[in-house]
Amino acid sequence: MAARGEAKGRAGERYEITEASQGKYHYVYGPYATPVLRVDPGAVVSAETHDAMEGQIKSESDKPSEILNFPFLNPQNGPIFVNGAEKGDCLAVYIHDIVPRGPQPIGTTCIMPEFGGLVGTGDTAILNAPLPEIVKKLHVDPATGVRWNERISLPYQPFIGTIGTAPEIEAISSLVPDYYGGNMDLPDVAPGAVIYLPVHAPGALLYLGDCHAAQGDGELCGFAIEHPTVTTVQIDLIKGWNFRWPRLETHDRIMTIGSGRPMEDAARIAYRELVRWMAADYGYDELEAYMLLTQAGHLRVGNMVDPKYTLGASVDKTLLGAA
Amino acid sequence: MAARGEAKGRAGERYEITEASQGKYHYVYGPYATPVLRVDPGAVVSAETHDAMEGQIKSESDKPSEILNFPFLNPQNGPIFVNGAEKGDCLAVYIHDIVPRGPQPIGTTCIMPEFGGLVGTGDTAILNAPLPEIVKKLHVDPATGVRWNERISLPYQPFIGTIGTAPEIEAISSLVPDYYGGNMDLPDVAPGAVIYLPVHAPGALLYLGDCHAAQGDGELCGFAIEHPTVTTVQIDLIKGWNFRWPRLETHDRIMTIGSGRPMEDAARIAYRELVRWMAADYGYDELEAYMLLTQAGHLRVGNMVDPKYTLGASVDKTLLGAA
Amino acid sequence: MAARGEAKGRAGERYEITEASQGKYHYVYGPYATPVLRVDPGAVVSAETHDAMEGQIKSESDKPSEILNFPFLNPQNGPIFVNGAEKGDCLAVYIHDIVPRGPQPIGTTCIMPEFGGLVGTGDTAILNAPLPEIVKKLHVDPATGVRWNERISLPYQPFIGTIGTAPEIEAISSLVPDYYGGNMDLPDVAPGAVIYLPVHAPGALLYLGDCHAAQGDGELCGFAIEHPTVTTVQIDLIKGWNFRWPRLETHDRIMTIGSGRPMEDAARIAYRELVRWMAADYGYDELEAYMLLTQAGHLRVGNMVDPKYTLGASVDKTLLGAA
Amino acid sequence: MAARGEAKGRAGERYEITEASQGKYHYVYGPYATPVLRVDPGAVVSAETHDAMEGQIKSESDKPSEILNFPFLNPQNGPIFVNGAEKGDCLAVYIHDIVPRGPQPIGTTCIMPEFGGLVGTGDTAILNAPLPEIVKKLHVDPATGVRWNERISLPYQPFIGTIGTAPEIEAISSLVPDYYGGNMDLPDVAPGAVIYLPVHAPGALLYLGDCHAAQGDGELCGFAIEHPTVTTVQIDLIKGWNFRWPRLETHDRIMTIGSGRPMEDAARIAYRELVRWMAADYGYDELEAYMLLTQAGHLRVGNMVDPKYTLGASVDKTLLGAA
Repeated sequence: MAARGEAKGRAGERYEITEASQGKYHYVYGPYATPVLRVDPGAVVSAETHDAMEGQIKSESDKPSEILNFPFLNPQNGPIFVNGAEKGDCLAVYIHDIVPRGPQPIGTTCIMPEFGGLVGTGDTAILNAPLPEIVKKLHVDPATGVRWNERISLPYQPFIGTIGTAPEIEAISSLVPDYYGGNMDLPDVAPGAVIYLPVHAPGALLYLGDCHAAQGDGELCGFAIEHPTVTTVQIDLIKGWNFRWPRLETHDRIMTIGSGRPMEDAARIAYRELVRWMAADYGYDELEAYMLLTQAGHLRVGNMVDPKYTLGASVDKTLLGAA
Repeated sequence: MAARGEAKGRAGERYEITEASQGKYHYVYGPYATPVLRVDPGAVVSAETHDAMEGQIKSESDKPSEILNFPFLNPQNGPIFVNGAEKGDCLAVYIHDIVPRGPQPIGTTCIMPEFGGLVGTGDTAILNAPLPEIVKKLHVDPATGVRWNERISLPYQPFIGTIGTAPEIEAISSLVPDYYGGNMDLPDVAPGAVIYLPVHAPGALLYLGDCHAAQGDGELCGFAIEHPTVTTVQIDLIKGWNFRWPRLETHDRIMTIGSGRPMEDAARIAYRELVRWMAADYGYDELEAYMLLTQAGHLRVGNMVDPKYTLGASVDKTLLGAA
Repeated sequence: MAARGEAKGRAGERYEITEASQGKYHYVYGPYATPVLRVDPGAVVSAETHDAMEGQIKSESDKPSEILNFPFLNPQNGPIFVNGAEKGDCLAVYIHDIVPRGPQPIGTTCIMPEFGGLVGTGDTAILNAPLPEIVKKLHVDPATGVRWNERISLPYQPFIGTIGTAPEIEAISSLVPDYYGGNMDLPDVAPGAVIYLPVHAPGALLYLGDCHAAQGDGELCGFAIEHPTVTTVQIDLIKGWNFRWPRLETHDRIMTIGSGRPMEDAARIAYRELVRWMAADYGYDELEAYMLLTQAGHLRVGNMVDPKYTLGASVDKTLLGAA
Repeated sequence: MAARGEAKGRAGERYEITEASQGKYHYVYGPYATPVLRVDPGAVVSAETHDAMEGQIKSESDKPSEILNFPFLNPQNGPIFVNGAEKGDCLAVYIHDIVPRGPQPIGTTCIMPEFGGLVGTGDTAILNAPLPEIVKKLHVDPATGVRWNERISLPYQPFIGTIGTAPEIEAISSLVPDYYGGNMDLPDVAPGAVIYLPVHAPGALLYLGDCHAAQGDGELCGFAIEHPTVTTVQIDLIKGWNFRWPRLETHDRIMTIGSGRPMEDAARIAYRELVRWMAADYGYDELEAYMLLTQAGHLRVGNMVDPKYTLGASVDKTLLGAA
């Protein structure tokens, strides 16, 4: 990948986006906002992210339904304008690290009416009464993990819940995941990985936010361990690498990411994109890739709660050199 | 309804939006475009609409996949700023009439790869080869109907395929139907009906376009009889009538409109909204309404091809006065 | 159709299936039960059907969840062995009439936990508390209709909720609709229509039951106006007419019936079968049929509550002679 | 678990089911077949399983669509009658081992029309032409793995694709997964695991078959590495442990298994059952379990190709003792 990027994988200039320099955070992924930064490929950017509730849920006695105000949810840093990026290119974003910031307890998870994987929602509309609202505030420490209660701590496994580029003319709620990235809630978008995002608008206009300290598959109740962070990424640009849906690469796997409803459509998108990637870049015949993934493909459910569900389909790199 | 509107149902000033006065058509529903008109409640507006392909499919030998260029599809007239409209209000749009315009053949339907109800698509992603592309151009005449071939003519039953207000901060492709209206493709949005659209942005910002000369339930192949028209609507404003999804009223029925995936979610939304309407305005207990709709509710499938499917749930008004 | 049937559409011998002669009713569609009748094509059979709760819900103070006992639900008459019927044939069942029987109030509808279109269910599994249980008993009279309350009566529009043949080796709950028919809850299966059912087992093994006095699209809460009846059908056999899903014909329309989840799959099945029927029997090219149905096809939602949802796709016969 | 079983986890009498002693294999899960064995809790049974195509696909030039004959697919060993098992009990089946049998090449995978995750199917009915049929025969060796081609071998990671008890009165195709088990295609059903199956019919009537030598998540093209085996399981009976959907336990995790369409319904079922298990047996409050699984739950997609999709939801046992 390094070889394909304009910066050849080399770290370039360093930038910080503080709460102050960000100013207004954004609630849509779109081309209508003024860039907060303009950078060359290679730039390393550290951003002070808010949690998905913009820090408004401060205590366990708060009522999310009274405080949270759609569509002003899931605040995003950015957009970052990447010099030279044009429609048909690809942004490669290396995730360097994610560090919690702010006073303890930093982490928050909730149950809120009309949202979540095991309740009726605005889309799966029912007449049943909602669950009671619950807020849980948690201590999060990179060394000791997420303190669930006196006996349980979960490992600190942070990732970026929402990241993507701007659509060409659309401006879509940061609650939505789609072809440009967005609210995928996929735990693989973690330090050590590089995510490839298709470019649709001049400068790509990278947004990110919504970091999670820990999350299971599906983000079941809709709120992972939400927490504010300093998140550092290195941005490269790959000219002319054109594909439809976000892709991801780690040391040992390649992954394609699909978002849709019903969930099988997200799975179909992800796997078809993986077939296409194996065919385009690794010498596979499409049907051979289809049959091999039947035996060796891996699916990760990112979320089963957002306006579109997100799944990642991946394959071990050891199987890629041998088509 | 007339009684609730600011204009009391009376027709006010008349306006025309010609191709020339419209200038650039719009491909998103959003608050970022400059209004083409500012009107008071009661305004009667006639708009020169394009067909969904902006007239670019000119002959049966054209290839839609080579001509159509996402996201610049489904051009919309507007936005129309309605004085006094604020978030939490409702726009009542009476559909006066729809008249074809332009040289014959006016009507167009197509089969295009990755789009349609009986093919794989970008969402229902498959590896099968696409169907052949087909374009069919048809004569459309309000008096004699849509001439399908020498033996078959379909009645001219025009309606507005895409109509809605702007979301508050989102700008969403005019191919999408959602809570603000948009590409619902629901044949009930026809002359004689009034559609109620929730207001999210100042001035409501009404868009419309995509008129169909005829369409079956589901808009199966994705292209109804698309045709350019002069479409005339009368716009009223109902202050403080606040609900989530578009509603519609005809002489004898009330209808609620839901859009979502999978299709059962669109049906759930539509029926829940109808239950709520019956409870709020017609004296029904919610569970009584739920049980009565089980026996007397009606579902219309608008589209089964768009990014979200659209269904309308309705009930006869004779059942409403007697809760 | 008459011309294709073994009995040439002529009524043959008459039979009655009383509660006594039926004895044990059946709760599965399968080949393992002993036929209650053996008839030749042309037979006219009157069956005493139970309501879907087998008459166990006797008063409005009953609790369905305490009385109803899965899988012993939706009792069916039959099976009727049709002489000469073999796999690959088709049973044509003319629906003559449906008459309520038993003491008033005859009709019953309910709200029951984990069942219905606007609640969580065993499939759409959620944690929300269920709605309260409600039973409503109603007077049903063919002349005056279904008396909902003092001010509302619904017209008596009876149909057969559940009808089908036996699968070849499967025995499937009579709550399920599928390729052999079953619990389709489609209001078109009414007097005057003929339903065509594919034959999978020797003798076809026709079952029927679950007649509704009235029902809206989708059977929203899961219980239409359930009532016991005497239902009379005339059975013919069409040799070698082989297709996958049930079909239906009325004076002016042909319809194909699909059942599946998600709902769009039921719609796809229904419309694809209609395309195939138009191609096989009416001279249409498949893609021409696909495009014409886009403009003139009709969808009816039978149920949105059963283990599979059922939709009927239909087209007016006036469009069939002119391919 | 051992403590709860009638046999206290002790291995009892040993049995073999050979092809000869099995005689006719079964294609439905139901109560209508004569048991091939009657055993006491503790019995260890080794069964000669066929591959899912009953060995009929013998060479890479075979055409599956010409050879395979629905509903005579996915042959099952059994049923095994477990003495003392009654409705409301639970069968605990320890999977001891799975060993390939028969002449090489033993393994088979295929592409067949109207079946698979990235094609149109009988349910997701489309008009696109099918993919070409492909058969791939492979050498499978427990030591050296599955030889995909000269450069790739996949590890031999066998599991039981189809296993379950009989429904009470239904007899359902062995292609289907549902509340009684069946064709779940879940790679966790592997040596070392114990699967818990609810009992619906007297004697439980255990069936199994369809062993896979390797499979990725989702069984994408519909055919894993299908192979005939000798599969050995130990059967115990837990009286009065009553739940709705299959469960599974390994050394370090507990898992619940849901099957349904759309895929989110399978996920909902699996996670709700896991919430319920944690509440019933591990001291969790339901909402606390819901929130914890949001952070620490795991989802495995078994299949995305069968008549119902199957997902397993699981949690690490280290989190269970600390509610």
